[in-house]
Amino acid sequence: MARERRRGRRTRAAGSAVRQAPWREVVNRFPPVAPLSEDEVRFIQDRSLRVLEEVGIEFLHDRALDILQAAGADVDRDTRRVRLDRGLVAQAIAAAPPEFRLHARNPDRTIAIGGNRIAFCPVASPPFAHDLDGGRREGNFKDYCDFLRLGQSLNALHFFGGYPVEPTDLPAASRHLDCLSAFATLTDRAWHAYSLGAERIDDAISIICIARGRTREEIKAEPSIVTVVNANSPLRFDTPMLDGMMTMAEHNQPVIVTPFTLCGAMAPATVAGALTQQNAEALAGLALVQLANPGAPMVYGGFTSNVDMKTGAPAFGTPEYAKAAMIGGQLARLNGLPYRSSNANASTSVDAQAAYESQMSLWGAVMGHANIVLHGAGWLEGGLVASFEKMVIDADTIQMIAETMTPVEVTDDEIGIEAMRDVGPGGHFFGTRHTLERYETAFYEPMVSDWRNFESWREAGGPDAAARANTLYKKILDAYEPPALDPAIAEELDAFATRRKAEIGRRTV
Amino acid sequence: MARERRRGRRTRAAGSAVRQAPWREVVNRFPPVAPLSEDEVRFIQDRSLRVLEEVGIEFLHDRALDILQAAGADVDRDTRRVRLDRGLVAQAIAAAPPEFRLHARNPDRTIAIGGNRIAFCPVASPPFAHDLDGGRREGNFKDYCDFLRLGQSLNALHFFGGYPVEPTDLPAASRHLDCLSAFATLTDRAWHAYSLGAERIDDAISIICIARGRTREEIKAEPSIVTVVNANSPLRFDTPMLDGMMTMAEHNQPVIVTPFTLCGAMAPATVAGALTQQNAEALAGLALVQLANPGAPMVYGGFTSNVDMKTGAPAFGTPEYAKAAMIGGQLARLNGLPYRSSNANASTSVDAQAAYESQMSLWGAVMGHANIVLHGAGWLEGGLVASFEKMVIDADTIQMIAETMTPVEVTDDEIGIEAMRDVGPGGHFFGTRHTLERYETAFYEPMVSDWRNFESWREAGGPDAAARANTLYKKILDAYEPPALDPAIAEELDAFATRRKAEIGRRTV
Repeated sequence: MARERRRGRRTRAAGSAVRQAPWREVVNRFPPVAPLSEDEVRFIQDRSLRVLEEVGIEFLHDRALDILQAAGADVDRDTRRVRLDRGLVAQAIAAAPPEFRLHARNPDRTIAIGGNRIAFCPVASPPFAHDLDGGRREGNFKDYCDFLRLGQSLNALHFFGGYPVEPTDLPAASRHLDCLSAFATLTDRAWHAYSLGAERIDDAISIICIARGRTREEIKAEPSIVTVVNANSPLRFDTPMLDGMMTMAEHNQPVIVTPFTLCGAMAPATVAGALTQQNAEALAGLALVQLANPGAPMVYGGFTSNVDMKTGAPAFGTPEYAKAAMIGGQLARLNGLPYRSSNANASTSVDAQAAYESQMSLWGAVMGHANIVLHGAGWLEGGLVASFEKMVIDADTIQMIAETMTPVEVTDDEIGIEAMRDVGPGGHFFGTRHTLERYETAFYEPMVSDWRNFESWREAGGPDAAARANTLYKKILDAYEPPALDPAIAEELDAFATRRKAEIGRRTV
Repeated sequence: MARERRRGRRTRAAGSAVRQAPWREVVNRFPPVAPLSEDEVRFIQDRSLRVLEEVGIEFLHDRALDILQAAGADVDRDTRRVRLDRGLVAQAIAAAPPEFRLHARNPDRTIAIGGNRIAFCPVASPPFAHDLDGGRREGNFKDYCDFLRLGQSLNALHFFGGYPVEPTDLPAASRHLDCLSAFATLTDRAWHAYSLGAERIDDAISIICIARGRTREEIKAEPSIVTVVNANSPLRFDTPMLDGMMTMAEHNQPVIVTPFTLCGAMAPATVAGALTQQNAEALAGLALVQLANPGAPMVYGGFTSNVDMKTGAPAFGTPEYAKAAMIGGQLARLNGLPYRSSNANASTSVDAQAAYESQMSLWGAVMGHANIVLHGAGWLEGGLVASFEKMVIDADTIQMIAETMTPVEVTDDEIGIEAMRDVGPGGHFFGTRHTLERYETAFYEPMVSDWRNFESWREAGGPDAAARANTLYKKILDAYEPPALDPAIAEELDAFATRRKAEIGRRTV
């Protein structure tokens, strides 16, 4: 057991490029931190439900309105404003599973979502890509594929929570076919499909069925793709999102409902107010998921931060953000649902700010007991930029935090009183048997951190963390090899994308 | 109450140079995180006591040996090895106060040490100073004074835990007189005196008596200076440290006993082993403090980290470091003592590594419920360098973490359902009354973080966090004004230093 744990900690080649800790599911062994009392959490829950009852929320989709009305909601067909009774919401949500499994093409990458597990994802959806060599540029398919290769090679990352960068050089109408096919071939982890209408979700289901060799019925029993649905805060869900989310629910694929509630912009300028609104919007969306398919897997998403009140600029990894991340967990647990948070920052470069804001976000997520950390690696500039260097640094940081949560072995063998006796006062432990037995695997070995002395570091050109991450990411990409895939499946994926592109092309020309 | 809290959060001019949150005592409202079970903590405690009973520890000081022998310890006068019975240790430690007050020249800067308070200090003892303009240079008295001025101006910092940089341009024999006089005049917070023999501690007591206008008897009732005593790990306390610590104890001034137990170097290559040794050394030193003066204030110090096992280079802010920081808190609480941790990192520049390793250290300290965070701001390069830029960034980070721990107000007024009703679906909260009433003080306003958009940032020259901190620290120094001091006291301090320097000069020539 001890041996096994130690072996698990051993750093080793992955993609044979850089030494990194092995892929593993991360267990959060720390208790959640609860900034609010039980009474206060229930107060927010009560006020959220009151918002849904009294103010209501817009669902810009006829079928959603039909479903909600059939369930007993008060629906105004003209304004599409829906008022939801708290009993209806509670009953709907109660049907959701508290945990579920997310299946990957590679069964070894299938993960549990919920409980005390945390899954980390690469950044999703930035319009720009960045690295130190090429600078800031519009998202493109080459960078997209490189981010997939990098994410696939980094053991810290569990599944893809969206396109790591938006490939704006591909036609918008058929881009999803290229992107999802790339997920299915360049990576063997689970991935995300955008809820931009039912058709694209349907394509995603087709692709995952081909990639995993499953029928649509089989995929229903083995959730394999996720989607994130944002409310158009305040208090509105738009048509394509609703269309996609209902389709996902009907296929029993997990929906992560995440209001983006920036205090002082799309939500009140207080943490309590923004969280009340976040909770109202999340519960409304989540209720619809269950009404569309009772028992469908789903996740409570929180993304409350604040703006700079002087300029209106969004901020991330702030004290308010960290508090909201922790309280978001309290609300998710009150509602019996897995919880999604993020690793966000607002820095324009891979500097100290990027790192300290990210750590504030990550500790907020960890202490809030998030089960999914979207944008876990590579997010920069408030989500406008996907950074290759930041992705490596974040992956390292995630593994450091994961390692911090592993148990410390407390046994006489580990403590080594005999070694202390042998070494004695004033000695050192470098050459003792106790040390030699352990030195190769004793400690977490980071990818990015540089512990050389100043002189050696300066002689090596004095590279900072971003420069070292630049070297690392290119080394990883050089060594990347696509995960094994049956050529027949690859061919079928290709044929599907070609056929669907032709269909879409005919329609849009 | 709500109003008061909000006012407390308001950023405002300090030294009229930069906006920062006001000085305040920081309350840790989060429960401590306990990586070990109660049984495991007791197991380590038991093994630590067994080390003291069976292996023993060296005290290189005759008076210390006298005191320990008189208390019933098994003392070998030849080897100076002392074996301490667990009953003796427990009884001695039980006399220590669980909390105490540390008095500053400015009564508004007097703080409580213990309970759920956290006090943060500037970096202490690096041989080198660094800023972006002057680069890395040997510590000198000009930089020393500038660090004092900067520390005095940063509201995040509660007292000085040592010389922020070693002024190597001053004669070693009398340097302490210049340094302590500078503490007494350039700052109005409490400060630290090095335990390098009884004489220097005696000088420090004289200086604090003059500065605070107190007699030596009065100072005994109002602890005003602290000292950090490191064990010479493994298992040895050296002569000057013991001399100083006993003198401090006899004057009832707080002693922080901190073994520096690097896993794999001066301690076993396991977290459990290094902590067992840390605990043994700390308890031995702390027992001596109480035997020298039962009831003297003292603090359990933890500084366990690991080395890079490939090179032997010390590492900080690692997963092992963070675990040890949290478990150190468990051991301190088991022994009923306030707890000291640190904000450490091993980076050679003010980059992402400096920030993420520091945050790992800080969250370890916060979740371990440290009461004192030494090296809280400005530490770089494993403690070899005091960085002006890092001091500003750390001060900002500390205040972000402190703000994260402040309560969230959960009231109908704060939640603002009426505002949500008025804004309605798809609107925004920028101009609402609810927002306007709060916008000036709603959120923590950082000093260093840059939230401008990319274009504005690039037009401004694209400064990273270190460059911005460089601008800030110089602005703060430009605006620095020394805290008010009675000219008679200033004169007396000067006369004392002059007289003592003459005495030391005569003796050493």
